Amino acid sequence: MDRSELKAYKKNFEYSYAPGAFPTFELLNKRPGQALGVLVSPTFTEMEKLKALCGKNGIPVWEDEKRLARLSDKENVFVMGVYEKYSQELSAKDPHIVLVSPSNMGNAGTILRTALAFGYHDIAIIGTAVDMHNPKVVRSSMGAMFSLRIRNYETYEEYRRDFPDHEIYTFMLTGKKQLTVHEVTKKPEKPFSLIFGNEATGLPPEYENYGTSLLIPQSDEVDSLNITIAVGIGAYMFRPIG
Amino acid sequence: MDRSELKAYKKNFEYSYAPGAFPTFELLNKRPGQALGVLVSPTFTEMEKLKALCGKNGIPVWEDEKRLARLSDKENVFVMGVYEKYSQELSAKDPHIVLVSPSNMGNAGTILRTALAFGYHDIAIIGTAVDMHNPKVVRSSMGAMFSLRIRNYETYEEYRRDFPDHEIYTFMLTGKKQLTVHEVTKKPEKPFSLIFGNEATGLPPEYENYGTSLLIPQSDEVDSLNITIAVGIGAYMFRPIG
Repeated sequence: MDRSELKAYKKNFEYSYAPGAFPTFELLNKRPGQALGVLVSPTFTEMEKLKALCGKNGIPVWEDEKRLARLSDKENVFVMGVYEKYSQELSAKDPHIVLVSPSNMGNAGTILRTALAFGYHDIAIIGTAVDMHNPKVVRSSMGAMFSLRIRNYETYEEYRRDFPDHEIYTFMLTGKKQLTVHEVTKKPEKPFSLIFGNEATGLPPEYENYGTSLLIPQSDEVDSLNITIAVGIGAYMFRPIG
Repeated sequence: MDRSELKAYKKNFEYSYAPGAFPTFELLNKRPGQALGVLVSPTFTEMEKLKALCGKNGIPVWEDEKRLARLSDKENVFVMGVYEKYSQELSAKDPHIVLVSPSNMGNAGTILRTALAFGYHDIAIIGTAVDMHNPKVVRSSMGAMFSLRIRNYETYEEYRRDFPDHEIYTFMLTGKKQLTVHEVTKKPEKPFSLIFGNEATGLPPEYENYGTSLLIPQSDEVDSLNITIAVGIGAYMFRPIG
């Protein structure tokens, strides 16, 4: 790919961008095979490290401040990796975080970063959802997405066909069991799926019928928890590490 | 106050705005005495409920789409409460969430909402920090701030002088104890303070010497947790309710 072909990101592109130093280095370290090149400002402070890493992997470094400014939305982006999009099979023996119709890019990125922090490497996305390769998601994940397997499914049934043996836990305000310390001292022995709904609408009611529905105990004084907080607490309480 | 005096928000104003329906109704229900008026678009769908609530409390309702659009940053704001800023003493017998130099408005609002969700009503802010009355904070708190006592302190010492008996827990990547289920089954019997640092820099090292420093166990694969997630997990594990 030549840098002159690069355009402002659109969902149907076969490539995307990792804006910022942290996401770019995560791309180069974790998915060097996907990297197509790196746009960088001549003022970037870690230029040597960048060039060494790219040199080793045969990845072009384009010093092109103008193009970088045009292709990144934000002003304070001094480096931005360009990568070929990919999709991966999820692991059948590991726990999954499952997001149903996530719609906010910042939240999606934060959730990816949080999942990785607690040792989850497999993320299923169900239904109409935010584009997980949007540069805003990549950026707010701090590049965590390059350490994860992420896969889209049209429906829950399609996901379930691929992973019929995962223990299912759905997080709902109508959850039948409270997520408590007690529950968590007996962690599931089988691989499991923690399923979370959309920011505004939560999980559709039919999810009450799948597996065990859980409620994170919370005060009547708020409408609901922010979705990223709910995922953080659920992922932490069930965490495979630590 | 006359609506013609209202200007685009600045930190030094004695009044601020609660943009959006949820934050406005929280203001009117929880702090009617602070409300100075409500700007509303004639197309607002809950006009009757709004007028009834304002009528009961003698709060003017200004149907003024143009002014509303000018004073709110966002396009999809159909209603916005105007309120007189206030500060409140924190409770000496209740647990506190303490934020040291929080710098991101969206995060600050999410933290307020999360604190309230887990039954905390007292928030201390230490050092140079985001303006908690900025309309962006109010909005991202979903109006939770109107149910909280929030107070600014210049230094930790100043906060500590007011609350010498609170048990102190600091959340740090260098924390000496892991925050685990075991720790939490024996919740502190005294009122306590959960202290969290800045988004980018965490807590300054001297905080290791105050009370008990805690580490939320997390993978080496990420740099750190997002601050809102750390507060969510800490607040949940120590929660006074549920």
